[in-house]
Parts: sequence; C-alpha cells; structure tokens
Amino acid sequence: MHIAVLAGDGIGPEVTRQAVKALRAVAANGPQFDFTEAPIGDAAYDTTGDPLPEATAALAERADAVLFGAAGTYESDLRPPEQRGGHALLRLRKRMDLFANYRPVMAFPELIGASTLKREALEGVDLIVLRELTGDIYFGTPRGVHVENGERVGINTMRYTEGEIRRVAHAGFRAAATRRKKLCSVDKANVLETMALWREVVSEVGRDYPEVELTHLYVDAASMHLIRRPRDFDVIVTGNIFGDILSDAAAMLTGSIGMLPSASLNAEGRGLYEPVHGSAPDIAGKDIANPLASVLCGAMLLRHSLGQAERAERIETAVRRVLAEGYRTADIMEDGATRLGTEAMGDAVAREI
Amino acid sequence: MHIAVLAGDGIGPEVTRQAVKALRAVAANGPQFDFTEAPIGDAAYDTTGDPLPEATAALAERADAVLFGAAGTYESDLRPPEQRGGHALLRLRKRMDLFANYRPVMAFPELIGASTLKREALEGVDLIVLRELTGDIYFGTPRGVHVENGERVGINTMRYTEGEIRRVAHAGFRAAATRRKKLCSVDKANVLETMALWREVVSEVGRDYPEVELTHLYVDAASMHLIRRPRDFDVIVTGNIFGDILSDAAAMLTGSIGMLPSASLNAEGRGLYEPVHGSAPDIAGKDIANPLASVLCGAMLLRHSLGQAERAERIETAVRRVLAEGYRTADIMEDGATRLGTEAMGDAVAREI
Ligand SMILES: CC(C)[C@H](C(=O)O)[C@@H](O)C(=O)O
Ligand SMILES: CC(C)[C@H](C(=O)O)[C@@H](O)C(=O)O
Repeated sequence: MHIAVLAGDGIGPEVTRQAVKALRAVAANGPQFDFTEAPIGDAAYDTTGDPLPEATAALAERADAVLFGAAGTYESDLRPPEQRGGHALLRLRKRMDLFANYRPVMAFPELIGASTLKREALEGVDLIVLRELTGDIYFGTPRGVHVENGERVGINTMRYTEGEIRRVAHAGFRAAATRRKKLCSVDKANVLETMALWREVVSEVGRDYPEVELTHLYVDAASMHLIRRPRDFDVIVTGNIFGDILSDAAAMLTGSIGMLPSASLNAEGRGLYEPVHGSAPDIAGKDIANPLASVLCGAMLLRHSLGQAERAERIETAVRRVLAEGYRTADIMEDGATRLGTEAMGDAVAREI
Repeated sequence: MHIAVLAGDGIGPEVTRQAVKALRAVAANGPQFDFTEAPIGDAAYDTTGDPLPEATAALAERADAVLFGAAGTYESDLRPPEQRGGHALLRLRKRMDLFANYRPVMAFPELIGASTLKREALEGVDLIVLRELTGDIYFGTPRGVHVENGERVGINTMRYTEGEIRRVAHAGFRAAATRRKKLCSVDKANVLETMALWREVVSEVGRDYPEVELTHLYVDAASMHLIRRPRDFDVIVTGNIFGDILSDAAAMLTGSIGMLPSASLNAEGRGLYEPVHGSAPDIAGKDIANPLASVLCGAMLLRHSLGQAERAERIETAVRRVLAEGYRTADIMEDGATRLGTEAMGDAVAREI
C-alpha cells in the first residue's frame, strides 16, 4: 500500500508528520505502508518554479492514497494564479477528478466548551458536508478581467452538467443511506438556473433511494439553519462554492476546527485526505499546531481508500482516549487539562495505538 | 412625504400594518405622511398575472420611500421565474437601482438568551453587512440551461464592473467612517477573477478614506469569523451572492432575526425598507409574527430616505422600552415575559411613541 505524503506549507509538515507516526504505529503488525514524500504549494514553487510539479502530480495519481497537509499562504495569494500555493490544490483536485469532498463535522464532547455555541445547541451534532469539488464557478469559463468602454469588468462562470450533479448526488444518497438517512441538498434554485438544474437532478437521483429522506434548502436558509439547529442535519450535499462557505461555517460551530479531517474522492475511491484547518502560517514551526485533524485524516484514508476499517477505528479510538485523558493542544486548551505541543500530541496518540 | 406600502405575501401585510401604525403615531404632530398601498409578489400575480405590476413599480419609483413586507413563498418558487413572487423583488431592486443593501445586526441585550451563541460571544455585537444588490451572479448573462452532447448544462455568470464595485465600496467606507472606522471587504480573490477585481477596486477606493481601517477576508474565512468573533466586525462590504449568505448567518447569530430591518438604497438615497425575516407563510395570518423588524424598518426609512432622524429615534426608543417592559412575541418569548400577538405588539409600540 503506497501513500503519497504531500505535506506542503505552513503547519502542513509538522501535523502531517504526526499522522504518519500514527499510521506507522497502527501498522506495527501486519501489512506495512510505503510513504513517499513530494513537494507541493509554496514550498514546491520556491524550489521548482511550479506549486504542483509534474512529478508530484504523477506520484499522487499513482499512489493508493494521498495524505495532504496544506498549500498556500496569504503571501503567495498575491502572486499570479499559476504561482500560488493554493492553486496547486485546485489543479490536483481537477486532475485526479476528486469530485466528492466529505467533511464530517462532529461535536467532540470534550471540546464543546471551546465553541461559541451553547452546549444545548451542539450536543449530538454529527453531520457531513459533501461538497462537489471539480465544477461550479471554480472552473467554469469564460473567466477573467477585461476592459469594456474603458472600464475593467470581471467575469466568472458557474457551470454544472447533469452528469456532474448526478454523480455527487449519488455519493450523497449513499452516504446518507449508511447514516441517519437524511439528505439535505443546498442550492439557490430560486435565483440561479444552474442551481434549479441542481435541484432537479438531485430529485431525479433521489428516486433510486426511497429509504433516504431528501430535503432542499436555499443556501441563505441553510447558513441560518446550521447555526440555529445544527443537530437536524445528517448529510448536506451542495456545489463547490456554497460548500466552501458552509463547510467552514459548520466546522467552526463545533469549536473543533483543529480536529476535523476531510476526504476528497474520485469515482475509483482514490482520494486525497486533508485537514480542514489550512496552512495557518502564523503558528507554523512553533510546535503548537493541533495535529489531530491530520491524524484523523490518516484514519479516513485507511477506511475509504485502503479498506482498512479496523485500523481506522484504532486510530480514532486512540484520539478519543488521549482527549479523555485530558491532553490538549493550545487551540483547545481548557482549565485542568494538560497542554501538549504538536510532537508530544502525536507521540501520545501513537502510544495509545 | 409619500410612502409606498408594498406589504406583499405571507406575514408581510400583518407586520407592515404595525410599521404604518408606528409611523402614524410618530407623525401625530408635525408633517404627515401619505401612504399608498400597492400589490406585489404572489398576491399581485394572483390578481394581475404579474408579481410586479407596472403600476406598483411606477408607484415605488415615484415615492419618497418604499415600505416593503415580503414577497414570494416556497410554492411560487416552483413556477417559472417571471411568475414567482420573489422575482418581483429582484426586478424592483434592479429597476430602482437599489445597489446598497444595509443590514444592521445588533445583539439586543434582552434577546441574547434566544440565540444559540453564548452570551460572552454576543455581547456588544454591532455590525452592518453591506451587500451589493444589483450585480453579481444574480443578474449576469449568459444564464440558463441548455443541452450539450445530450446532457443538460446549467450556466450562470458572475459579473462586476469596476464602477459597480466602486460605488458600493464608497458606501461601505462612508458607513464605517460614521462608526468604529473598520471596513472588512469579503471576496474570494484567491479563486475568482471577478473577486480579485473586487479586492483591487475596494483597495483603490480605500485611499480616499485614510481614517478607515480596511481589511480583506475570503468568504469562507468570513463565515468562520462571524461565528467565532462576531464582535470584531464593524462594517462588512461584499457582493450580492456572498452577502445573501453572510447576512442571513449574521442575523441568525444574535437570536433576533424577527427584529432586524434592512435598507436598500440607490444613489439618490431613495430606498426600499424590508424586514430580514421574509414571508414565513407557515405562520401568516395567525397574529403571532414579530412586527418589530418592520417597525424598525419604519425608523430606518425616516432616517435614511426622509431625513427625519429625531422621529426615527423615537420609534427605536419605543421598541427598546416595550422590550424592557417585558413584552415579547412568540419567537423571542422567555420565562417571566408577557406574550403579545402581532397587533398587540404594534399597539404597545404606538402607545410608547
Ligand atoms: C485554498 C482554496 C482555493 C480552497 C478552496 O476554496 O477550495 C480552500 O478554501 C478549501 O476549502 O479547500
Ligand atoms: C428571495 C430571494 C430572491 C432574495 C435574494 O436572494 O436576494 C432573499 O434571499 C433576500 O436575501 O432578499
């Protein structure tokens, strides 16, 4: 089993190292993993002139799964797109056709206190945002800035084909079918024709899943319901741009943003596993970042791309135990807990495994 | 002074009636208002075949200000666009060129308990979301669904000219200059060229307002910060679609969605005043809707379109007093308070005035 490790920028390398540690620990007996590291993001741009070098992309495509850290910084966002660390990620998503981005959001009981939401509103929250990741206004053309009557004009194109909508809808129904059997599709069908097509196609696909209850929400209403009644949601399926906004809001609700993994899968189940938190350059290299999101990415990778559910559970259990024992990184620190750095937290998890 | 009253659908008529009551009460001495009612939304479609009859649009354009209730229902959203109540509002915004939509969001101390957010996170929240309202993906062309290689394909176009961005940026800086002097511009400049132009033009306009501190956030980060640190925001300026999502989230944070007015202004300061809550057809006609958002729309209308700041304050003070006396509608009810219906709440405010 071959895992490509693309640690990238900011806190990417230090948190990914802890995930690799956990994966090695869980593979102490039985089949081993092959890890191959490759540069991506600003780090790759600085040495090769390309944030997604061809060798890195080829490695990611060949591997059984990709363990990803973070790419890009605010600094490189000021450069032209081809030179931005963050764009490496967009290109890799497209190239590997990783259309289904799963972001599970749970309220870890130990961390509920860290949220700005009240305990009553959060208890029992357990939802997945399934974001379409290879279409929408992210990739549609025409796009760009041109001059019209002496004025600059910016254009981007939201675009979805029914095939693109159908495959992510199927993924949403399948996910809901294994859970509480509720799928909420989020669109803006009252204003955007693309989103009216979204609603239509999701409803058509729904006929194949009579056991799943399908509801629809406009994106503005969804952003309210997430805050008001997050517990009501099971699986949310939505397009790329609305998913970008809603999944970050959902992650923040629980106070656990440093704890949340995500998986981006293609039709063959190959995938890229990425912490939700991003590169956080301000705290990089200080051994204070929370590595648990990356560690939990390792668990998701085992379950979804390698078919090793038992090992995945061992990692997840180890994380819960470490939290139950009162170990915390700075972002989730509370009175009476024991504060650990990034490395030490990774060691604690490996020990539990 | 001539006020067009477009009460519309759902709870629109009953809440708007209370706003008119408050406006009449405050005008008991001094210059009177002329109110003219006209149909809009589903109500207008059912009688005239057009959700925005020409007579209504013409009346709104001629009036000194428009007091608006709500338009559209989930039912009519299933009809073709031209027949939907909600589309009347989009057309009226465009026709009157109401490009600047101000949504003040405050945490009313009396209502903080009704929020899902903790008191500590909410206390002192006082922000305005300024949403651009006549451009963006709402109106850009090409748009629609066509067939390509036997497949349906949906297209919408995000589009902003620098002139459109500049005028709303000026509005944002002017609003911030009269407040805590912080403007946060929200975009997705790292992915969308239109939003990179947005950031560039807002920054250019910023040079005219050296006293205002300008910051930029990506929309996904903004949706997190709103939940994590809502108090940090003063004025947020953003495009039409991101503003739709963020302003609803911001309104929901405070637990006061039934309390929040909004103003949509054009370059001449003419405006349409509309409660944030929408038509809520499920509770229409039951005398339980909260009329305070509409009443506060009346206050905003006096201040921004009629230049009657003193009268505006009298309405706002009356609302605060009624709350302080423990009167509540069902949506904000709490132990020990006195529950009032829509009419009775309107009467209580009028009495205080
Ligand atoms: C870095 C950026 C291009 C990216 C996105 O918008 O998809 C990020 O926000 C994410 O959610 O993974
Ligand atoms: C009804 C709908 C068209 C409208 C919009 O999206 O602008 C509404 O959500 C709003 O925010 O006023």
